[in-house]
Amino acid sequence: MAEALVLFFWEATMTQLELAREGAISAQMEAVAEAEQVNPEAVREGVASGAIVIPANPVHAGLHPCGIGRGLSTKVNANIGTSSDFGDINSEINKLRVAVDFGAHAVMDLSTGGDIPGIRRAVIAASAAPVGTVPIYQAGIEAIERHDAIVKMTADDLFAVIEEQARDGVDFITVHCGVTQSAIARLRQQGRVTDVVSRGGAFLIGWMLYNERENPLYEQYDRLLEIAREYDVTLSLGDGMRPGCLADATDRAQVEELVTLGELVQRARQAGVQAMVEGPGHLPLNQIEANVRLQKSLCQDAPFYVLGPLVTDVAAGYDHITGAIGGAVAAAAGADFLCYVTPSEHLGLPDADDVKLGVIASRIAAHAADIAKGVSRAGDWDMKMSLARKGLDWAEQARLSIDPERSWKVHSRHATAGLACSMCGAFCAMDLVSQNLGIKTTRC
Amino acid sequence: MAEALVLFFWEATMTQLELAREGAISAQMEAVAEAEQVNPEAVREGVASGAIVIPANPVHAGLHPCGIGRGLSTKVNANIGTSSDFGDINSEINKLRVAVDFGAHAVMDLSTGGDIPGIRRAVIAASAAPVGTVPIYQAGIEAIERHDAIVKMTADDLFAVIEEQARDGVDFITVHCGVTQSAIARLRQQGRVTDVVSRGGAFLIGWMLYNERENPLYEQYDRLLEIAREYDVTLSLGDGMRPGCLADATDRAQVEELVTLGELVQRARQAGVQAMVEGPGHLPLNQIEANVRLQKSLCQDAPFYVLGPLVTDVAAGYDHITGAIGGAVAAAAGADFLCYVTPSEHLGLPDADDVKLGVIASRIAAHAADIAKGVSRAGDWDMKMSLARKGLDWAEQARLSIDPERSWKVHSRHATAGLACSMCGAFCAMDLVSQNLGIKTTRC
Repeated sequence: MAEALVLFFWEATMTQLELAREGAISAQMEAVAEAEQVNPEAVREGVASGAIVIPANPVHAGLHPCGIGRGLSTKVNANIGTSSDFGDINSEINKLRVAVDFGAHAVMDLSTGGDIPGIRRAVIAASAAPVGTVPIYQAGIEAIERHDAIVKMTADDLFAVIEEQARDGVDFITVHCGVTQSAIARLRQQGRVTDVVSRGGAFLIGWMLYNERENPLYEQYDRLLEIAREYDVTLSLGDGMRPGCLADATDRAQVEELVTLGELVQRARQAGVQAMVEGPGHLPLNQIEANVRLQKSLCQDAPFYVLGPLVTDVAAGYDHITGAIGGAVAAAAGADFLCYVTPSEHLGLPDADDVKLGVIASRIAAHAADIAKGVSRAGDWDMKMSLARKGLDWAEQARLSIDPERSWKVHSRHATAGLACSMCGAFCAMDLVSQNLGIKTTRC
Repeated sequence: MAEALVLFFWEATMTQLELAREGAISAQMEAVAEAEQVNPEAVREGVASGAIVIPANPVHAGLHPCGIGRGLSTKVNANIGTSSDFGDINSEINKLRVAVDFGAHAVMDLSTGGDIPGIRRAVIAASAAPVGTVPIYQAGIEAIERHDAIVKMTADDLFAVIEEQARDGVDFITVHCGVTQSAIARLRQQGRVTDVVSRGGAFLIGWMLYNERENPLYEQYDRLLEIAREYDVTLSLGDGMRPGCLADATDRAQVEELVTLGELVQRARQAGVQAMVEGPGHLPLNQIEANVRLQKSLCQDAPFYVLGPLVTDVAAGYDHITGAIGGAVAAAAGADFLCYVTPSEHLGLPDADDVKLGVIASRIAAHAADIAKGVSRAGDWDMKMSLARKGLDWAEQARLSIDPERSWKVHSRHATAGLACSMCGAFCAMDLVSQNLGIKTTRC
């Protein structure tokens, strides 16, 4: 009993990274190993080395821990949250529900409108999935409310918000620590088509230029690490310099920031803090693999969290598809965590249908990549579906589909005379070969 | 005048391949060069070597020639056509219109129900894009109508249908000439999860097994070449052994057939007949590049026409996305022609909305690949869009979008207070950086 209590306090005061380094397999690591059907020791080793993170703030009650990184299945994040024009909490809680129902593994509350702390607390309370935030949004908006300008925010204001959010139970936070004066200098020297497209990055750059100061998240990184360590908040080192169009991809500003993030990953690990790294953005298809390899090398195998990547700029209205193409290629090359992109990206705030389509597109990408990179038993699902397909078992095919309701609805749209679907009708190849021709070769 | 007439008859009796070999740049080659903004001589060289095909049956009045192959932009095909359960001609003509409106470069009429010849003629008359067919469908179905069984079809019946279709003005035909007795032996020896999923392949295999005969399209390939040469019908050498699920991908049956197709490409070229090669199908993401390289090597750079490829089996209802992922990767690796996949693939006959979504998804894939493989000026479109985006010019962004109407509709769904969209509202990074912070670095 006394021993169990000691263990409890020991665990409660250490991060997953520190526990793993001590050789302990935490309940969270056990849960991740169980969910992924891998060896708990492999999870512990991954967490200890920093190649796996488990964003799991002990304050977040009811969390189902989720592992992100080497050897684990590719995860999908759904962004939700209000904007300055649309601040309704209920619609965001509904989006949370839709996102998780369709298989998102994590959500980020990116609210910038309405009661930001209230929405965050409601999202954390309602979410069994890890919840992420971008604290600079709240800090910047409070500075506008109090002082009429983001640039009047103090470093103390920013760290106070970070601590408040950690205390609320946020599991991971995007912090644009690599937006340094030297990255801004690279940006100016480079020249870009779309400059800066990261909201958090833009807030910080505005602040830095006006105040002629270094980024407080960089300058006072140890202060950030202290808060992150205390609450075991996983740092998601943001890419404020991510390219906003293909023409800006893999440029010097982007890579300068990534080099800095590599240093910051190392310092986070030294401080016992879990860290992952965010990545672009808009990238031509033939630059994705290089970007993933560069991140893995510069950041010592830290989990890579990519937004898209979007492989063309012209598909507004269909950027869930653009993002699925890039995400599949990135994850197959080693990216670990896909931030979904919805059909309303570049156009407006997504609604619940957009959230659904965004999650499904990213899950397709993640699953296709998992098969390609040999994630344990990823192909089992496809094998079951293929057997149901061969058997013309439509109910089982629908049940196994990524969206059973839609699968059944599309199949049932046209009535058919036979067993086959309305695509081939009487001339279904599966049916012809199996039923009539006696060359059934099925091996499973 | 007399000279022009001689030239006319000379051109009219030679295929594009023969003309190119003679050093002549035909009107079709000129049109392709103009559309692609490349040198006509490069098109001629590509056609002469067989690395480019221009499916252009002289009988097809009003055709806008379309080049497929090396150095040209990736093309998209949309399958339309009736099935045994749904034989309405008007709905198929409507799908043709939708497909071409949204940017399909070619259509295949795969009708297997209703008045098949009548539908084909209507499609050819209505289509400025090249039209393809799969003649075995009509031949097989006529055999059922006349003799109650596909297996009662004679080789003469099949070649009569091929000639009828060529006479009607079909620009390219899928012919499963590589479904040989030895490929069937490989299939049996291999064992598969989903056996044969090609309808044409299944028709032929049924016929071959019942009649204990070799495939007439292989055995009498010279007879096929004679018809194809006479009408300059481009052969699309079909993949009857294409894998129908990830587990069957890149197996011995598939590769045996591809080896045979390589020989048949060479014989087609020797006979002055244009030929391209069809490819899978269902392929894990990490096998796509190898499949493209294998095809290019075995088939001496013949244009590669891929169906998808689909990178997972589980996404019924969303296979336009699965196909866009595979298609982008295949085309970036060198595939030349993407057969679209609609959201109703594996579930039922597509409707006009499915056709639209399928075409758009494939066009996104093709365009992303064109940027990656350096197709001349492919990135210009993205640059224009990025500049409009940076300028927060919503009308111009909509105009430049792959689907202007949808882009405008999604953007207009939420009213906003400022210039920015409802995603970021007052906190638009582009707006913050450009308008307020004076670090506009735009280089274009």
